[in-house]
Amino acid sequence: MPSPDESVHPTATGLAKQTVDKHQDEQDITLWSGWFCPFNQRIWMALEERKIPYKYKEVNPYKKEKHFLDLNPLGLVPTLEIKQGGGTDKSKALYESDVLVEYLEDLYPPSEEHPSIFPSDTYEKSWARLNVQHISKKIIPAYFKLQQFQDPSDQSKAREELYSGLRTLAQRVKGPYFAGEQWTAVDMSLAPFVRRFYNLVKYRGLDESAVGDGWQDYSKRLLDRESLKNTSSEDKYYTEILERYLKNEAQSEVAKATRGGQSLP
Amino acid sequence: MPSPDESVHPTATGLAKQTVDKHQDEQDITLWSGWFCPFNQRIWMALEERKIPYKYKEVNPYKKEKHFLDLNPLGLVPTLEIKQGGGTDKSKALYESDVLVEYLEDLYPPSEEHPSIFPSDTYEKSWARLNVQHISKKIIPAYFKLQQFQDPSDQSKAREELYSGLRTLAQRVKGPYFAGEQWTAVDMSLAPFVRRFYNLVKYRGLDESAVGDGWQDYSKRLLDRESLKNTSSEDKYYTEILERYLKNEAQSEVAKATRGGQSLP
Repeated sequence: MPSPDESVHPTATGLAKQTVDKHQDEQDITLWSGWFCPFNQRIWMALEERKIPYKYKEVNPYKKEKHFLDLNPLGLVPTLEIKQGGGTDKSKALYESDVLVEYLEDLYPPSEEHPSIFPSDTYEKSWARLNVQHISKKIIPAYFKLQQFQDPSDQSKAREELYSGLRTLAQRVKGPYFAGEQWTAVDMSLAPFVRRFYNLVKYRGLDESAVGDGWQDYSKRLLDRESLKNTSSEDKYYTEILERYLKNEAQSEVAKATRGGQSLP
Repeated sequence: MPSPDESVHPTATGLAKQTVDKHQDEQDITLWSGWFCPFNQRIWMALEERKIPYKYKEVNPYKKEKHFLDLNPLGLVPTLEIKQGGGTDKSKALYESDVLVEYLEDLYPPSEEHPSIFPSDTYEKSWARLNVQHISKKIIPAYFKLQQFQDPSDQSKAREELYSGLRTLAQRVKGPYFAGEQWTAVDMSLAPFVRRFYNLVKYRGLDESAVGDGWQDYSKRLLDRESLKNTSSEDKYYTEILERYLKNEAQSEVAKATRGGQSLP
């Protein structure tokens, strides 16, 4: 019998499917992607926001093909495959969403054609990076715990942890986005998770009004962003996946780490 | 009765003390530092390696003073205080060692006077960042577990986890340093922890020869680096601190997270 995750829906749906279809031509950059993965969606959004040419390639990380594993032995999406020049067929790869965001900034330096997703001011850029880390260290682990934990008192603790992490961020939002008018890596790192909150509202008592400090206005603006919508599939397919987390049956690396009390991979 | 950590030796010793003494003049950047902290030592080394002017300020993070907490509400070292121009007394702060390394690159763009600690090639730079993340996610948590765990079978698992993380890195070392001749952020992120391995060798059965793949040669080169030596205190003072971790009595945020099976702060 296949593990539950092997029956994951094989392709993006809805607006995300339309975006996939527009990105089937060969390019120097290939995004090895999982349509359902929030970490993956960050980089997909970055490519869209920054108008960087890329080819989209769907991979089922629970049935990892050899070429993908050669590129990234950890087998995690997102992975970027980068074509090498000089008439060789060899390609290089990079992974880790934070690393990929920086790589894209270096590869396509900010210009009118390729707008940056970092503030141009040196201090503000680092402040944005610091808050991306706040999201990774404080918000995301709480999000996964709230999803997976089965004991109501553990859930309650995770919920408070999530509120607290979101509140700290909300207090720092300049508006309309984190850094002001500019959409930055901070908004992009959080938006894919906020997109999936609906399931925690339904099954885990998540009440965004409990965050306060302007969180709900900010949250709405994140959900309204075109690049988020254009990389999002239909709710029912997310729900199929999210339910495995709710039952603590998911077999992704993140799910296993959350279950085992480990740092997220 | 004060908690054991409150009696931490108040100042750097040995060569580190000499470096502290050379950095007492006012500068635009102040390093709020803990002489004993390996995360802190990374940034201290970065300032030294990149020849960036800074003032050194010792803080006992277990007796956090108000100005320090105003700068960094998390109360973690390293914290950089950055003087603002324009005749105002206000200053800004940044923290998180990975963020600080990038900040210093942006603030002092690589030049002959201020050598970079990243490779200049775009791909190699990202590959270095990816391996800094490998160190943060795979090596450092195993290091702290091996130190703190009391059960021999837990220790044995942590030791294998540490070997495995080090081996992956060792296989990627171009030599003499990670990225070749250039000393980079990868070497710098790991060196302060390797500096503290002696205690794990003595009390936790750490046997560096078990790593293989050239680890021991690389490890020796890390320990030989001037910037590591010049920011290192005398062994006996490290040992005092490390023994609290060995007994699982340390009260630092990292110690508490390791004890509670949480992600490191």
